[in-house]
Amino acid sequence: MFTCDKDRVKDKIETFAQFGATGRGGITRFSLSKEAVQARNEFVKRMKALKIKVLTDDLANMYATVPGSDPALPGIVMASHLDSVRNGGNYDGVLGVIAAMEVAETIVGDKIPHRRPFTAMVWTNEEGSLYPPAMMSSGILCGKFEKEAMLLSKSPGGKTFGEALSGSGFAGDQTNRFNSRDYAMMLELHIEQGPVLEAGKKQIGVVEGVLGMVNYRISTRGQADHAGTTPMSYRKDALLAAADAIKYLHTELDKLDKNLVYTTGELVVHPCVHTVIPDQVEFSLDARHRDPEVIKQVVKVIKSLPKKLDKCTVTSREAWARKTVFFNRDLVTIVEKKAKALGYSSMKIYSGAGHDAQYVAELIPTAMIFVPSKGGHSHCEEEFTSVDEAWRGINVALNTVLAADADFVPGKRR
Amino acid sequence: MFTCDKDRVKDKIETFAQFGATGRGGITRFSLSKEAVQARNEFVKRMKALKIKVLTDDLANMYATVPGSDPALPGIVMASHLDSVRNGGNYDGVLGVIAAMEVAETIVGDKIPHRRPFTAMVWTNEEGSLYPPAMMSSGILCGKFEKEAMLLSKSPGGKTFGEALSGSGFAGDQTNRFNSRDYAMMLELHIEQGPVLEAGKKQIGVVEGVLGMVNYRISTRGQADHAGTTPMSYRKDALLAAADAIKYLHTELDKLDKNLVYTTGELVVHPCVHTVIPDQVEFSLDARHRDPEVIKQVVKVIKSLPKKLDKCTVTSREAWARKTVFFNRDLVTIVEKKAKALGYSSMKIYSGAGHDAQYVAELIPTAMIFVPSKGGHSHCEEEFTSVDEAWRGINVALNTVLAADADFVPGKRR
Repeated sequence: MFTCDKDRVKDKIETFAQFGATGRGGITRFSLSKEAVQARNEFVKRMKALKIKVLTDDLANMYATVPGSDPALPGIVMASHLDSVRNGGNYDGVLGVIAAMEVAETIVGDKIPHRRPFTAMVWTNEEGSLYPPAMMSSGILCGKFEKEAMLLSKSPGGKTFGEALSGSGFAGDQTNRFNSRDYAMMLELHIEQGPVLEAGKKQIGVVEGVLGMVNYRISTRGQADHAGTTPMSYRKDALLAAADAIKYLHTELDKLDKNLVYTTGELVVHPCVHTVIPDQVEFSLDARHRDPEVIKQVVKVIKSLPKKLDKCTVTSREAWARKTVFFNRDLVTIVEKKAKALGYSSMKIYSGAGHDAQYVAELIPTAMIFVPSKGGHSHCEEEFTSVDEAWRGINVALNTVLAADADFVPGKRR
Repeated sequence: MFTCDKDRVKDKIETFAQFGATGRGGITRFSLSKEAVQARNEFVKRMKALKIKVLTDDLANMYATVPGSDPALPGIVMASHLDSVRNGGNYDGVLGVIAAMEVAETIVGDKIPHRRPFTAMVWTNEEGSLYPPAMMSSGILCGKFEKEAMLLSKSPGGKTFGEALSGSGFAGDQTNRFNSRDYAMMLELHIEQGPVLEAGKKQIGVVEGVLGMVNYRISTRGQADHAGTTPMSYRKDALLAAADAIKYLHTELDKLDKNLVYTTGELVVHPCVHTVIPDQVEFSLDARHRDPEVIKQVVKVIKSLPKKLDKCTVTSREAWARKTVFFNRDLVTIVEKKAKALGYSSMKIYSGAGHDAQYVAELIPTAMIFVPSKGGHSHCEEEFTSVDEAWRGINVALNTVLAADADFVPGKRR
């Protein structure tokens, strides 16, 4: 078993936490922002210190490659992202980049023999915080989005992703893009972003896939009238109807499988004035489960919403859906074995969150490793994973990469 | 009985509907905007056609005064406003100004003898749509707000009310301000903004006062976590808690007096992202009733909200409150008698909405006349009152003004 350098891991976590620091323990580091460029420069500096080349492609994805002994073989890539949500934490994404860097540093520093090239990679704009959608550049490279459309994605301030890309100084050549000929497999280490590992007292999450999901938009429509002059019996209050719809959904969805997660995260009231009875409310319903049959039951519940609630009309439409992504079974098995060989407790788990890895998994064998998130919190400043926990995860990644380098025969998708 | 000119009323309604027309039947005419200046110019043009002076005060309130036969007597003023909410209608406020103009035009045109000066007045910024608060300049003149603070009130675009005032060309001399020495009484005609007159098949609302109210801000606080990775049992969903709080309030408040009106018009979710469990929701609760005892019961219900709902904390605070304003009983009686004498059906009613008249009522004898609102709608483009209904209301106003001019002895507040 190989292990990496715990102090070096700690140093990287602390260093990257400075770029975009909010002063309250978290970061705001939007893709291609000044703060993100600082983080990118740090990545380049540390990788160049290994005397290896750092390339960028036309979407500013970065690739630092340690050559292998057999130049004919396709490579192994570890990748994640350096950008964050607003007031995000110091672990989501960046820990996967730190892991990739640490694996490269250990392979080079300890002169570990390996056949295939090993690439530490950074995906541009995973969060999509300024320029939606999320997982933008992996989506483009894996054929989910059109590049031309993505270049026009606009920040709330009116800047396009294309403008940010040109201005970043990191846009490179399209020929450097990740592709399924030059890369044999991808591994991504990430924080769990949930409380399951912590609650189960497990050190490593062996990620089997990414949960399928549906996202619905549900609307209630009533009549905007004056709050002071409209007797209660004359009202068509779209917010009361929305509250009743949310309660209905909770009651019915709670009867389905206990592993189902569903959320109303977004709710917008119109006109949202304290003296006006709302005439329209729109809210999201995000539901995730591994089993497509359960997702079908969720849709059935949504469709069973009464067409009228509190004299308001209720409508729903699917905004998007994704099928469950299953990671490569052989790679998942290697991850599990290496965790065990290192003496770490582990459990199989599905990712409820989306990751670049889920797109890559459609092209080449892919797997993910989760490390615990304190309190299950993520996308917030409280996000925390200890250096020990991170270090253990990276050790699993390092040994998985080396085992795959020696034994793994890519080809099967699953 | 005197009556005014129905065609002239119709012409004014149609003319003013052009200034800020949205093209969908309504108007957006923010105070001191280009569109509001067009409406002000129309007011000035029509009043100057009567060969009377039009003055403005330092807040751009406008006064067109028809002199009376006894220059020593304090005057009678009819006033309302020309500004609207966004996508408002053609009647709220402007119909009161049209009524005041029509009374002046009728008195002058028909050479009706009268002792006191009669002033048709326009209040600046009643809606507070761009520059909060509502009823800003009547509030300043009646001692509710400090002028200096109000000048700094900022539009969403960053312009201050003071800047808008200077740029409008309508700011005049402070000595022209409405005051309780020069004016003996005020009358305001307004649309009901509710469905009560229409439902009761009454032509005139004899307004006895403005309902007392409380406005509370209620917050729920939970924990923001990832929608895909947090099992249901670990969640502290502030939006679910808010839905439960709203349902609780409806259940409990519906047990109180049937004339109580209460509304949650504003509700804001944080962070309002479909993939994040909301950590905070804040919503308004506006409750209005004539009887302060009922308002006390409302506060008791709010205070009885569980401190914890769905593992989230629930807190509430009073944002503001106002006591019920009672209009001058003698004036209210004159309005009622004149409606009857004209052969119109009428009913006593309280205003649920706020009006400049409620501030003025604390200084001089004041009353209001309501005309029906189709479907009870207001603050929207569907707002509608027929020319016949408007004309009847203005006839009541005209005869009330003339009766008060002859008989009314101001002095008592109620």
